[in-house]
Order: sequence, then C-alpha cells, then structure tokens
Amino acid sequence: MAVPSPQALSKLKAALGPKGWSEDADTLAPYLREWRDRWQGHTPLLLQPGSTAEVAAVVAICARHRVAITPQGGNTGLVGGQIPMGEVLLTTRRLRAIRDVSPLDDALTVEAGVTLHEAQQAALAVQRRFPLSLASEGTATVGGVLSTNAGGTSVLRYGMARNLVLGIEAVLADGRVFNGLKRLRKDNTGYDLKQLLIGAEGTLGIITAATLKLSPVLRGRATAMVGLDTPQQAVALLARAKAESGGGVEAFELMKRLGTELVLKWIPDTREPLESAPPWSVLIELGSGDADTAPAALERLLAGAFEDGLIQDAAIAANQTQAAAFWRLREEQSAGLKPEGGGWKHDVSVPVSQIADFIEEASAAVEAFEPGARISVFGHVGDGNLHYDVLCPEGADLKAFLARWEAGSRIVHDIVARYDGSISAEHGLGRLKTDEARRYKSEVELDAMRAVRKALDPLGTLNPGVLF
Amino acid sequence: MAVPSPQALSKLKAALGPKGWSEDADTLAPYLREWRDRWQGHTPLLLQPGSTAEVAAVVAICARHRVAITPQGGNTGLVGGQIPMGEVLLTTRRLRAIRDVSPLDDALTVEAGVTLHEAQQAALAVQRRFPLSLASEGTATVGGVLSTNAGGTSVLRYGMARNLVLGIEAVLADGRVFNGLKRLRKDNTGYDLKQLLIGAEGTLGIITAATLKLSPVLRGRATAMVGLDTPQQAVALLARAKAESGGGVEAFELMKRLGTELVLKWIPDTREPLESAPPWSVLIELGSGDADTAPAALERLLAGAFEDGLIQDAAIAANQTQAAAFWRLREEQSAGLKPEGGGWKHDVSVPVSQIADFIEEASAAVEAFEPGARISVFGHVGDGNLHYDVLCPEGADLKAFLARWEAGSRIVHDIVARYDGSISAEHGLGRLKTDEARRYKSEVELDAMRAVRKALDPLGTLNPGVLF
Repeated sequence: MAVPSPQALSKLKAALGPKGWSEDADTLAPYLREWRDRWQGHTPLLLQPGSTAEVAAVVAICARHRVAITPQGGNTGLVGGQIPMGEVLLTTRRLRAIRDVSPLDDALTVEAGVTLHEAQQAALAVQRRFPLSLASEGTATVGGVLSTNAGGTSVLRYGMARNLVLGIEAVLADGRVFNGLKRLRKDNTGYDLKQLLIGAEGTLGIITAATLKLSPVLRGRATAMVGLDTPQQAVALLARAKAESGGGVEAFELMKRLGTELVLKWIPDTREPLESAPPWSVLIELGSGDADTAPAALERLLAGAFEDGLIQDAAIAANQTQAAAFWRLREEQSAGLKPEGGGWKHDVSVPVSQIADFIEEASAAVEAFEPGARISVFGHVGDGNLHYDVLCPEGADLKAFLARWEAGSRIVHDIVARYDGSISAEHGLGRLKTDEARRYKSEVELDAMRAVRKALDPLGTLNPGVLF
Repeated sequence: MAVPSPQALSKLKAALGPKGWSEDADTLAPYLREWRDRWQGHTPLLLQPGSTAEVAAVVAICARHRVAITPQGGNTGLVGGQIPMGEVLLTTRRLRAIRDVSPLDDALTVEAGVTLHEAQQAALAVQRRFPLSLASEGTATVGGVLSTNAGGTSVLRYGMARNLVLGIEAVLADGRVFNGLKRLRKDNTGYDLKQLLIGAEGTLGIITAATLKLSPVLRGRATAMVGLDTPQQAVALLARAKAESGGGVEAFELMKRLGTELVLKWIPDTREPLESAPPWSVLIELGSGDADTAPAALERLLAGAFEDGLIQDAAIAANQTQAAAFWRLREEQSAGLKPEGGGWKHDVSVPVSQIADFIEEASAAVEAFEPGARISVFGHVGDGNLHYDVLCPEGADLKAFLARWEAGSRIVHDIVARYDGSISAEHGLGRLKTDEARRYKSEVELDAMRAVRKALDPLGTLNPGVLF
C-alpha cells in the first residue's frame, strides 16, 4: 500500500478535529513501541476517534483514499499485530463508555477502549463476573482482547474470549457500521459475523463495542499448590478434578521447577510453596456457588489423589493471602525469565492427552540442537496450552543464542505440528508468526481465509501487515 | 440454477457407484417429505456418498457442471432447509464412522451421519457426556445439528452446538476438503472457519465430520417442578439459581398452564405435577460432580424462594422415574398442541430480562388481531428462547385461522424485533424464514453475509434456496 497522500491525511484530521489526531513524536512514541521492545513501528498519523461514528468516518476516508490502517487497543499484544509499519494508526483508547449493564441478562455492553479490568469491575458492581482474566488486564482493552480472541487463566471453565461475547459492534472496511450488539443467547439467523470478527486481528473490521457475557460471582473458592513427578500425572489429576467437581475447576496451571526457581530467585516477596520442591507443580482452583462446596471438594480430591499415588505433595491455601501468593508464583513465570536474558518463546497448544509426550519429545530435540539449553514450561493444562520457553545455557553467549531463535523455534513448531497442535494458542499471529503459520496450514484453509478477507476488505486497507 | 444435464447426472452416478445414488421414487420419498408435512420436495437424484472423498468427488462435479446441491442430515429440521426443490439431494447418512474417542482430551470425532444419540452414547462409553440434547436426537445427525447450530435443553449451561465443537472437516464448494479436525481448545492462527461453517445451513460447505467437546458425567442431579404466578418470577428465580449454584443449573424450562393442560389431555401416561395447577411452571434441574451437592442445593434454593414469596408451589422429584415424568411434561409440549389442529409457531428469543414484557405485549397484540386465540408458551428461560405458539380459538374455523399464520406471525416478529430479539432462536432460517429475516436485518449485515457466501461459494451451488 502506498504512502498516504497529504490530501488523505488532511481529510482524516478534519474528520476528527484537533483532539482526534496527533503527529507529535512524543505523543506517538508509546503507541509505536511494543512493550517487550521487539517492534518499533512508524506511522504518518495517529487517529484517536472518540465515537463509533468517528471511527466510521475515518475508515471510510481510508477506503476512499486507499490508506492502510492498523488498529490498536491497549498495546499489550505479544505478536506485533498492533504496531504500524507505515500504516495510519487508529487507537480505540477514547472509546471509553460503559454503555449498558443488565444483571438479569448477565450482559455488559462496553466500548472497545474500556480495559479488561474496568469491564471486570463494572460486572462486579452488579454482583456479576466477567471471567476473562490475563496478566495485562489493567491495560488490555476489550477491543484488543476480542480482536485477538484472548485466552488467559479461566479458559478451562469459561472458554476463550469468543465464548464470552453476546454481541459486537464493528466498523467494516468500507466505513459502514455493523450493529450486532445483541444481548441474546440464541440467534440462528445466518452466519455468525461476530465469530468472524473475533480473533481476526483487525483485518475484517474494527470492533468498536461489545456485549459481554457475565457469570455468577463465586461465593466459594479453594486453591492448592500440588507437587507432581511428571506432566502426565497433571493430566490424570485434571481428568479426576473435572469428573469429581461437576464443572467446578476454575484453574489448573502447570509449572516446571525451573520457572518456579527463577520466580523465587528474581521476584521479590515470593516463597517456596512446597518444601519438597517437586519437579512439576500444579496450581489448582475450584469454585462453587456457596462458601463450603469448593473447599470440601478440593480436600476430597487431593486426599484421593494422594491415596492413589498420583500426587506427591500439596498445600491448600488457608486464606486469600496464601491463595494470592500461589497465584503470584504462576503469574510471575514470564517475568522470572526476563532477568536471565530472555529466551526463545513459544505459545503452543497440543491435545491435552499429548502434553507429556510433546514436552518430552520437544525437550529432547531442543537439547540436541542447543546442548545445555534450559527449558521453562508453564501453562494451562486443561487447554493443552503451554508457554514453552528455551533459555540460554548457563555461561553461553546470549546474543549468539538469541540469533538461533528462529531455527530453534522451527524445531519446536514442527513437533507441535506433528501432534496436531497450534503454533499460536492464545496470542494470535500478528507480524511475528504469520509467515511461520503459513508453513503449517493447508492451501485449502489459506485460500478460504484469503477469500473471506477479500470479500470483507476488498481494498486491503485493514491491518495489511498481519494474517494471510 | 438450471436443471442438471443428463451428462452431469451420469458423472455423479459414476463417481459413487451403484450403491451411492438413487432415482427410485419409493427410496426418495422419505428424504423429500419434511416430518411435519410442511414441505414436499423434489430432486432429480439422491446422492448417498459413503466417505469424505466421495462427498468431495460429487461436490467437485456439481461445481464443474453448475449443479445445485441440498445437503441433508437426519431430515428433522423444522424450517425446510434440508428439502430440495429441484436440487440434487446429498444425504450424509452413510457417513457413519466414529473415528476417534479420547477421554483425556474430552474429545469425540464422528462423521456427519452419526446421530446425536449415537454420539451421546459413544461419549458415555468412556464416562463422558456430550451434553447437546434435543427431542429429535435419535434421528438428528451431528452434521445437521452443527449445520443448523442446534440448541436444545442444555444451552443454558453448555451453549449452542457451536460451543461444543473443537474441529470440523468439510467439503468446500469447489470440492476441496478442509481438514480442521483438531482436538485443541486453543488455536489462534487466523479466522475460525469452523465457526463460519457451523450454522451456515450447508451454504458454505458440507460438514463431513466433527470433533465434539465432551463434558464430565454428572454424578448428582436434582429435578423439581415449580409453580409461579408470572414469567417475571421465573426470571428472578433463575438469577437466584445461577448465583447460588455456581454454574450448576442444568436446565430451567418455562411452561404456561395451557401447554401443560394439553399435554395432560392428549398425551398418555402423564399426570398433574403440582396440585395447585399454577398459571406458570418451571422445570429446574441442578447437577453436580458428586451425588449430594445438587439435591442439597436445590432444596436450599427452593426453601429460600418460598420464604421470599418468589414461588407458590414446588415438587422435588424423589427419584429418576419422577424426574423423567417432569421432563416428559416439558418434552411433550409441542406434541400436545398437535391434536388441537396445530397453530402459528414461533421460535423466538429476546433478552432474558425482557421475557415477561415480551409475553405480555405479544399476547395482547395477538388477542387484538385474533380474539379468543389460545397462546401456548414454553421454552428455555436462561436463553431467552420461547416457543410461542398461537392456537385456533375454540370453535373457530381452523383452515381460515391457519391462513392468517403469516399475518399473525408478522405481528409477533415485529414485537420480537422491537425487543432486539431473534425470529429464529434455534431452528435456523431454511426455506421458511429467510424472507422474513431479511425484513429485520440491516443492509450492512446482509451485504457482509452475501459477500462471505460469494467468496466461499462463487458459483452458488450449495443449498441455494436458503439464506441470503
């Protein structure tokens, strides 16, 4: 796509007025830098529309003048899909209204720029819960979370972002507004366009508002840290927890010892949860509608698992503070790796039953390719989703190690593909993984995706740097 | 679309061999008649492919020769989407394999012609549950259920068909096979094509197999029939049940007195569940992972609701037989109407919070249009989904009454639209409702749907008589 003409840029500015755009380098800077510093973008113009109508106006101008747009939410994405490389940048941060909350419908309608945390709070204010939860929820916006079909720690029970949406409002590529803000649970009247827009990384339309599906607030919660010898035991324990709890498993998070050690080493105010320092541990949380069911169910589950030799060690959180401390050990896994110089990061999924085999095979292959590499594994067992990170061997040259990232990742991803897995379980493809994903997809699937995109964005103005 | 040429028909026959097709009137008859006798179709040829490769072969021939195809599963659809009107008819009934069942993945892969009941049984055989459940499950096939995004009685807890699918295999309009049979919970690598194919009523591809998401078997269940004065009380009771049970509400089904009376009148071996014969009743079912939690929770819920004057009467099922008797009263609601000569049927949804207002407004409008009309209402409160049926006034001319169906439905649907509802909550549009739906959809939405369809089926050979 060509560089936008001065004429097009001045029309865009005129459509939004002085508060609605910026070319100032200092203002632009935070929008152009990805938070892990992997991408530094550039743009001729930052658009800051304050309403759906303003989004529609600028998207229409872009279509008329063939100006490419990169939409951006909270700029917390991990694959660079929100960073413009010459495109006009459209931030949704001024779309801030909480339009409607309806507890009897378990529905909350918010604009795209509302943060995930604010949406959660708006739900809590009417004794409901928006269960989607992830580390960056204070900054990540609803629009971004839906555009990337975000996951997080509660997918096991509540599903991905796409399962938590009743309706979508979006500006399509020609600047028209699709108003699909329904509060309905059931609506079989043609193709589900919202499901197409969710996870499309801004390539099929720009989400401006959404009606989110709320859940009951849990009155009972029980949290434990459990020590295991192998990932296979974690899979078996999960099956047992699901069967016994009748759907009450809120979280089931696996951590390899290395990751926990690094959290303990680098993150202040953390402490060893299990004296046995087991090779693998699982953070398990059960929830219930009353106060008592979850704690009783957790004790029963762990007692049975001990008896059958499935688990080696366990600590049940005695109170909220202790539960929060357990969660911190899980949430800081990524941060704990950073002071080690970072690593080759993978956000992959495989069928749950294949988790143990995958870890074994991938680790052997990585060790053969990079002797001494330290492997950190944490993730969501119930989703088959592992954050599989390879750290530099102790004492090795970090720069040379990081230069082998692509080749090393290829090894991991090839194994993922053999297990019928996904090379991007929850982060999307963005600028980082689109090429890599092309390797593993069939021509049939790629052709279908390209056809759909061409149908809804025939001029190719929406986020042209990402997806196929 | 033109009548298929003899040349095209003979190529189709040759591709399938003698067992794979039929022109025999007696063989064809049951495929051409819709089970409520609303449609009598016709076709030049019945195709009975026995494998995905055979489906692909005939769809490719149809594309080459511009032959239109209507796909059909168990022929239980209620809107005529499965009935050919000159198209070649492709039945999936010979796609019968259960390809894989993986309890650790909570995944079951079956071909499209497997019935819903058979899929449920295959899950039970490995101590899992496929929770989708509807009256025609003994005949309805997985392919049909997914193509129409079926609902049923367990949507409240488990979602529509689209929420219960991990992967899809489908033959696209050009005859190529899209293999998306993943067992993954998370896969953010581009557009979710399976979500596009689900609910597309066979217009974007022919589903040949699916990987279904299984749930734990419930070890505890508790069922009650509850008497109420108003639908608003049902909505309030549901909110309370959801909050107290922590996600354990398995079913919450509303019935108006008229429907129950007609079941008691016409259906053998049914009996009055509540002596007070309340104007409205709700069948409520709670489930739990252990035996005791659900019964205790149901008793607690009903005791509290009595105390607060929310409910007037209740009977808790003492055993499985009694629970089955309660369910029968719900499941026979539709059958109970039939001997009364049928009626104007509506499968609508509105936001849950609007159920009571909608019923009041619609009933007043129907009474004004058709004085003395008898109104039956039953449905899934948690989904806002009401089967709202208008019966002939006692003693009036049935034929003349049925002739006013379309005008009467228009009144009901206009009110549904004002409540931001849907005129087809769970049955789809098919041949029956496509025109009507066009009235209530925006041009933006229709254009987007048409563009997607044109992109994936540029020749328009797939089920051309349905959708937009």
